[in-house]
Amino acid sequence: MPGTFGLLSPATADPQLRSLTDDDAVVAAVLAVESAWVAVLENAGLAPAGSAASVQEAVREGSFDAAELAAAGQGGGNPVIPIVARLRTLVAGRNAPAAAAVHASLTSQDVLDTALMWLARRAVAALREDVAGAAAGLAGLAKSHLDTLQVARTLTQQSLPSTFGLKAAQWFHGLASAAARLDAIEFPVQFGGASGTLAAGSVLAASAGTDPFTLADSWARELGLAAAPAPWHTNRAAVTALGDALASLCDAAGKVANDVLLLSRPEFGELAEPRAAGRGVSSAMPQKQNPVLSVLVRSAALAAPHHAAQLHLAAALSVDERPGGAWHSEWAALLSLLQLAGGALAALREVACGLQVFPAAMRRNLGLSGALLLSEAVSAAVVPLLSDGGGSAGGRELFQAAVDRALAAPAGDQGAEFARLLRDAVPRHALSDAGLDALLDPAGYLGESRAIVTRIFAAHPQWAPEGTSHE
Amino acid sequence: MPGTFGLLSPATADPQLRSLTDDDAVVAAVLAVESAWVAVLENAGLAPAGSAASVQEAVREGSFDAAELAAAGQGGGNPVIPIVARLRTLVAGRNAPAAAAVHASLTSQDVLDTALMWLARRAVAALREDVAGAAAGLAGLAKSHLDTLQVARTLTQQSLPSTFGLKAAQWFHGLASAAARLDAIEFPVQFGGASGTLAAGSVLAASAGTDPFTLADSWARELGLAAAPAPWHTNRAAVTALGDALASLCDAAGKVANDVLLLSRPEFGELAEPRAAGRGVSSAMPQKQNPVLSVLVRSAALAAPHHAAQLHLAAALSVDERPGGAWHSEWAALLSLLQLAGGALAALREVACGLQVFPAAMRRNLGLSGALLLSEAVSAAVVPLLSDGGGSAGGRELFQAAVDRALAAPAGDQGAEFARLLRDAVPRHALSDAGLDALLDPAGYLGESRAIVTRIFAAHPQWAPEGTSHE
Amino acid sequence: MPGTFGLLSPATADPQLRSLTDDDAVVAAVLAVESAWVAVLENAGLAPAGSAASVQEAVREGSFDAAELAAAGQGGGNPVIPIVARLRTLVAGRNAPAAAAVHASLTSQDVLDTALMWLARRAVAALREDVAGAAAGLAGLAKSHLDTLQVARTLTQQSLPSTFGLKAAQWFHGLASAAARLDAIEFPVQFGGASGTLAAGSVLAASAGTDPFTLADSWARELGLAAAPAPWHTNRAAVTALGDALASLCDAAGKVANDVLLLSRPEFGELAEPRAAGRGVSSAMPQKQNPVLSVLVRSAALAAPHHAAQLHLAAALSVDERPGGAWHSEWAALLSLLQLAGGALAALREVACGLQVFPAAMRRNLGLSGALLLSEAVSAAVVPLLSDGGGSAGGRELFQAAVDRALAAPAGDQGAEFARLLRDAVPRHALSDAGLDALLDPAGYLGESRAIVTRIFAAHPQWAPEGTSHE
Amino acid sequence: MPGTFGLLSPATADPQLRSLTDDDAVVAAVLAVESAWVAVLENAGLAPAGSAASVQEAVREGSFDAAELAAAGQGGGNPVIPIVARLRTLVAGRNAPAAAAVHASLTSQDVLDTALMWLARRAVAALREDVAGAAAGLAGLAKSHLDTLQVARTLTQQSLPSTFGLKAAQWFHGLASAAARLDAIEFPVQFGGASGTLAAGSVLAASAGTDPFTLADSWARELGLAAAPAPWHTNRAAVTALGDALASLCDAAGKVANDVLLLSRPEFGELAEPRAAGRGVSSAMPQKQNPVLSVLVRSAALAAPHHAAQLHLAAALSVDERPGGAWHSEWAALLSLLQLAGGALAALREVACGLQVFPAAMRRNLGLSGALLLSEAVSAAVVPLLSDGGGSAGGRELFQAAVDRALAAPAGDQGAEFARLLRDAVPRHALSDAGLDALLDPAGYLGESRAIVTRIFAAHPQWAPEGTSHE
Repeated sequence: MPGTFGLLSPATADPQLRSLTDDDAVVAAVLAVESAWVAVLENAGLAPAGSAASVQEAVREGSFDAAELAAAGQGGGNPVIPIVARLRTLVAGRNAPAAAAVHASLTSQDVLDTALMWLARRAVAALREDVAGAAAGLAGLAKSHLDTLQVARTLTQQSLPSTFGLKAAQWFHGLASAAARLDAIEFPVQFGGASGTLAAGSVLAASAGTDPFTLADSWARELGLAAAPAPWHTNRAAVTALGDALASLCDAAGKVANDVLLLSRPEFGELAEPRAAGRGVSSAMPQKQNPVLSVLVRSAALAAPHHAAQLHLAAALSVDERPGGAWHSEWAALLSLLQLAGGALAALREVACGLQVFPAAMRRNLGLSGALLLSEAVSAAVVPLLSDGGGSAGGRELFQAAVDRALAAPAGDQGAEFARLLRDAVPRHALSDAGLDALLDPAGYLGESRAIVTRIFAAHPQWAPEGTSHE
Repeated sequence: MPGTFGLLSPATADPQLRSLTDDDAVVAAVLAVESAWVAVLENAGLAPAGSAASVQEAVREGSFDAAELAAAGQGGGNPVIPIVARLRTLVAGRNAPAAAAVHASLTSQDVLDTALMWLARRAVAALREDVAGAAAGLAGLAKSHLDTLQVARTLTQQSLPSTFGLKAAQWFHGLASAAARLDAIEFPVQFGGASGTLAAGSVLAASAGTDPFTLADSWARELGLAAAPAPWHTNRAAVTALGDALASLCDAAGKVANDVLLLSRPEFGELAEPRAAGRGVSSAMPQKQNPVLSVLVRSAALAAPHHAAQLHLAAALSVDERPGGAWHSEWAALLSLLQLAGGALAALREVACGLQVFPAAMRRNLGLSGALLLSEAVSAAVVPLLSDGGGSAGGRELFQAAVDRALAAPAGDQGAEFARLLRDAVPRHALSDAGLDALLDPAGYLGESRAIVTRIFAAHPQWAPEGTSHE
Repeated sequence: MPGTFGLLSPATADPQLRSLTDDDAVVAAVLAVESAWVAVLENAGLAPAGSAASVQEAVREGSFDAAELAAAGQGGGNPVIPIVARLRTLVAGRNAPAAAAVHASLTSQDVLDTALMWLARRAVAALREDVAGAAAGLAGLAKSHLDTLQVARTLTQQSLPSTFGLKAAQWFHGLASAAARLDAIEFPVQFGGASGTLAAGSVLAASAGTDPFTLADSWARELGLAAAPAPWHTNRAAVTALGDALASLCDAAGKVANDVLLLSRPEFGELAEPRAAGRGVSSAMPQKQNPVLSVLVRSAALAAPHHAAQLHLAAALSVDERPGGAWHSEWAALLSLLQLAGGALAALREVACGLQVFPAAMRRNLGLSGALLLSEAVSAAVVPLLSDGGGSAGGRELFQAAVDRALAAPAGDQGAEFARLLRDAVPRHALSDAGLDALLDPAGYLGESRAIVTRIFAAHPQWAPEGTSHE
Repeated sequence: MPGTFGLLSPATADPQLRSLTDDDAVVAAVLAVESAWVAVLENAGLAPAGSAASVQEAVREGSFDAAELAAAGQGGGNPVIPIVARLRTLVAGRNAPAAAAVHASLTSQDVLDTALMWLARRAVAALREDVAGAAAGLAGLAKSHLDTLQVARTLTQQSLPSTFGLKAAQWFHGLASAAARLDAIEFPVQFGGASGTLAAGSVLAASAGTDPFTLADSWARELGLAAAPAPWHTNRAAVTALGDALASLCDAAGKVANDVLLLSRPEFGELAEPRAAGRGVSSAMPQKQNPVLSVLVRSAALAAPHHAAQLHLAAALSVDERPGGAWHSEWAALLSLLQLAGGALAALREVACGLQVFPAAMRRNLGLSGALLLSEAVSAAVVPLLSDGGGSAGGRELFQAAVDRALAAPAGDQGAEFARLLRDAVPRHALSDAGLDALLDPAGYLGESRAIVTRIFAAHPQWAPEGTSHE
């Protein structure tokens, strides 16, 4: 079957996602927008009664071949022209006066901008389901693992004890913040007429004693879109804001994927993706189980920034009352962003809701550095005890010497070696075995990790698990 | 003198802009952030009285060589380490206990993230002056030229009559919308400690009966920054949102520059940049006057999208509790965006406040297509008058024939030819010369251009000229 | 019909271009690559006689639904796994031993990298037809307009007299240079096995007394691809070099489009795109004729750089023996580049071969600045003649005064005013009217414009018009 | 000290690298180019004897303040105008006729394009030293570790046994391929005069009986640059090709850094960066040792693609005989690429030449999957031995059951478990302990890893260690 279905963009190949964003969806959006306009005109007395019904019938019963329309769209440089031509023909065969109302006083950009906002609003609504599901999954992980010890890592190296609950809460925080940005996005209707003056619309509206702004507001209501104070043919802030928010969502998903990809490596073994039949298989190695959901999320997150930049570039290159080329370079980038964010969030949701967590491995890895991770905290307690036989400087020096000797041991033994050296150096009467163990217990140096989780939930009450935001 | 000053980035070479964003400014920001922290500790009883004063003195009197610090920053991969080391040495020479309070419980990322937010807030405040000036200039142009006829152009071709006032109002709309986005940006303080758990900060705060969140809030107040619900070491939404807003501002400025560059071409002659001694000169052609302000704005607008994408990429590549590489790739991109937006807006302000407008040239260019631009509007009135000798189909056909014959004339004559053909075709008794002239007057087909300007002003009351927003 | 066909990317919507790059084409490429491998194995005695024929028959007669395969590809994160599974099933039904040879010792990346190289080579071959056509068209324009005067413009302002022939020759130069870069690209076969060691391939080959490099070379020959010295799973230079070359081609096409878009504006009127039924129409304004080919070229040229950067990013993020995410982000970007370059070149060819040139308009626009453009050249001849009544300084000052007075005239009159002022200032006995006219003739100050055209043709003998390269 | 020195771009903060690419270096390049031009004119008899010496003296003894020149460059939109003005003043004070020769018949773009090529050629020459050093280091690693077992990893999971020597050889291959691309780059002189026609240059040259192409060729020779067949003011292929090659070098360096960052994590422990005093330190955690060289390389590799795209964008937006804005957006991007590649390669060299390799850890990690990695290879030998009691299908099923049971064990035990299960299942008389051990030895399934290393060396004889390319 000709066409593109995501074969080479598997992060976006889900058929349901595709059906919201493929060329059929674009055709449907254009037709929805044109139909709604005729309904607006009919309601305003600017089209004969029954016009909207005829248009809807033509849309319902006519066939619109996306492949043919795509090829035909090259002639005018945009897809609206052939779709409108086809629609007019179909309507004319049913109801000639209704055909005259189709696209009356609109220009291609009015229709395409509005149609893409309409399509985007629906794709975003679907995407938001996955945001909610993923947020719930991540919040659940955070709540369940509030006390699951895991080493924190900075610049690739182990740094301090932390919890997996805090890590999951920060994933949740990132996702919820991006979702808040998306929720603030407006999807405005576009109505400027051929050149942004509403000249034809003004004449048309006047003939029914109204004005084109009133018509535009009705159109927006009909389509579930936002009203616009003015035409925005050349001010593309609505488009860039949407693109930026979608990219932010991909950023947040990418962060989770990167961590999962790392921590599900066998050398870590701290996490594993949920298993599903046929997922993660290799064409060559039967024993392999690849974290393919995270791979797909990451591939989407790597691609989104470029597409968002494309939208800014198009905005920055705007000229005249409609630019030749810059506007045209927007469409594919916007669709790609909707697909990438949609695909990333669907996969993220699945990861978040089925992630396998292995606390024992987290504990084992934490043990690699072990007591050394606490050297800063331990020194305050231990240095005075080392200084019996000398000045306080001697205590500090002895302590540092223990750190250095421990660092000279093989990586996996450094923590244990450090504990051993401390035990040898500190008299038992000054610090009992139990006392030293307590001092070297990573669970005792978690800072505010629990409180931070609570504060994160409080910052996003709409996504937080019940009861958590006022713990 | 070694260093980079914008020699190859003339859009950003203004010394005042550079002084807000060069390496000295970064050093100053780091020092301000560290000083404020000691003040917070002192106020909380966590550092001896006088500590903050000693640090401030060391900052004021010590020398910090940005070039040396930059080179030293390679060792740890960030500039905070050598700056703190230098600061500690300077403070220790004055007040040893104060030196212990410097950077206490902070990590490099706490300081650098906070310092860049502090620096960005100041750079944005300066930039906002230019936004205000530019907005006022554009609003003034819109108000003065409400009735100045200018042809609208779409896909490079003349399309319909419009006004220069509407074009300027749309410039204003774009700028004001981008400014609104920037005004919504928060500049949060960063405080997570070595690994985002606030471990050391928690211990430190507890010793004075407080908690690290309270310290962080005080720090934010001291610095004029926003409080943060949680550490954001790995959730870079604050950075991407700022970058996106700066890019949007460049987009809006770029749109104006593109129009000015086009319309100040001698073949158009509709606009000219304000003249100033030494500006716009050529190294080879003494008679040339280049629109160099708009050239610089455009060069900035072309560069901004990539830098904003870099910030998203860094966010998307976040891993662990601090990524190695992604975080580091943020800094230069953020600084570049501050510089590009700052430079673009300063130049835009100058363009907006001094733009020369040539209504006669606008009128002359409008005349190139002239009556033809009105063909859609005219046909409704004229077709019935042509149909005397035949059916109404005959009228429509005669009219289209006139259009086609006019289009066959040389480009500059088509408008006049069309008027002539109409005069020949329509009997004078049906339509007088005056009547035909009125019908072909572009000033009669301006749609809602005045109303749109009013609506745009109403949408941005804080920037609109007085009285306009409730006209 | 579901799928994407270029409806929102009209620069790439040509059905023939799509058929080379859509998902069916990818499936076909994978099948071609797998078939060829079985043929190689059969020739080496590693698969039973008749295996290749059975595979070819399965490919020919089996049905491969791209939409279904795309959805199935999500499971393993790449499309090869479901295609191979389907192929094996189809072959097994015909010839069980042949089924065992399908994909034997290959890994998904071997097949996908090789298939994309195979697909790219074919798409590039098709594209190269359009390069040749466009080059011929541009060369023809250069040759025909060697002496067609046109003003040169720098930083938007008129600068010096030049010729349209030189401009067209520079277009040709840009295109031919980019084509040379594309011609240097290699399309290597990929064969590394599961992890780049050729472990399974080595065992397999050994069983027939050969080695996997020999098999790989046969495979390359079978497919018309280049041999590779080593597996390149993680060294993506072959991919980035191809992407960069495609972007360069788009750059060159974009330059032409930008000039055509500018010079076909009615205020210029120097060029017009070839007309064709149904092209350049507007959905709202019947009199409009948009330069839609150049709009599409420009839209492609604006998008290509981002996709090329995506390929570099993927290369820069390579890790392990196959990265999870980076590799996956390559495929869509590479396909987009093939489509954008293909679409841009097809449109460019049409522009180049049918461009309408209006020398009279070029001459008229040149006249706007007219004699002023020559001020530098004229001063040498005229200053001495002005200095009769004073020192040579006096002559220079008088001349500059004339320049300044001319610049004070309205833009369109400056050239004529300058000529008038000179005539008044220079005594006729020192310089006759004819002498002055000759001095002020822009045709006399064209520098090396003819010689540069000749040199450009000589630099690209394979594309230059016959006889020109050794003029 | 004002200015930017890399404080926020530590990958590029090396003072020597900066000195090749900072604003002083740009000033020096412009002066070198202008000086060389006067020398060319003097040699051609177009400037009085001694002119070049006077210019050189003015350059040597005069002061050129980069910060002041940068600010002054805003007026004309490029830095050449103020530099030339300053140079002329300085020369005029020494030798008035020589001052007239400065910049004679050149335009700003001639000088800036040529100066940037001159600067780039020198920066690339310095960079190439580091390429050579890094290549030698990587080749040494490959040679020393030809037989050092290391597990190959794909999509984050362990896949097959391999060697560290092969990994290092592939690093070498990537670097050497990118270097070959850089070595093919030409650095052409730019000479087109004010508008690309060489009008003034033609007149000037004619006065000495020569032509401007001859002058340009002499200029190129004087500067060590390549001759150009034609002016390339608007064909930016020379710039994009350079940018693409620099990005490719960063890609290759990034690949190594990514692997080092991963494999020096304590959970891997296979590699460690060379230690150096003051490197890799943390501002908060004294026990940490960060792989900061690789962090810097990676940060550079993440930034390079965007800058390369900026160059393509500038090329794609070229219009007229010199574009306003696009050209201006090139300079900073090109400088950034030179700095990023320079910084990345210097750090890579240090990594390559001092990398610590821990074969025992490699072997330990390989043991995590152990025998399971060989399941494909083992099955051929073992399945027949399992089938005694049944059909061959039974053998295959028994084998797969062993694989599945092994996969159910904890990750670290799977390899051993698989070996145990096999031992239990295969009768000792059919396969001795020694025979089974041999079968399960990963060193026995390395495919062509040695041969691939040899082939890689052979493909890059200029960089390969002595003797290796014809092993």
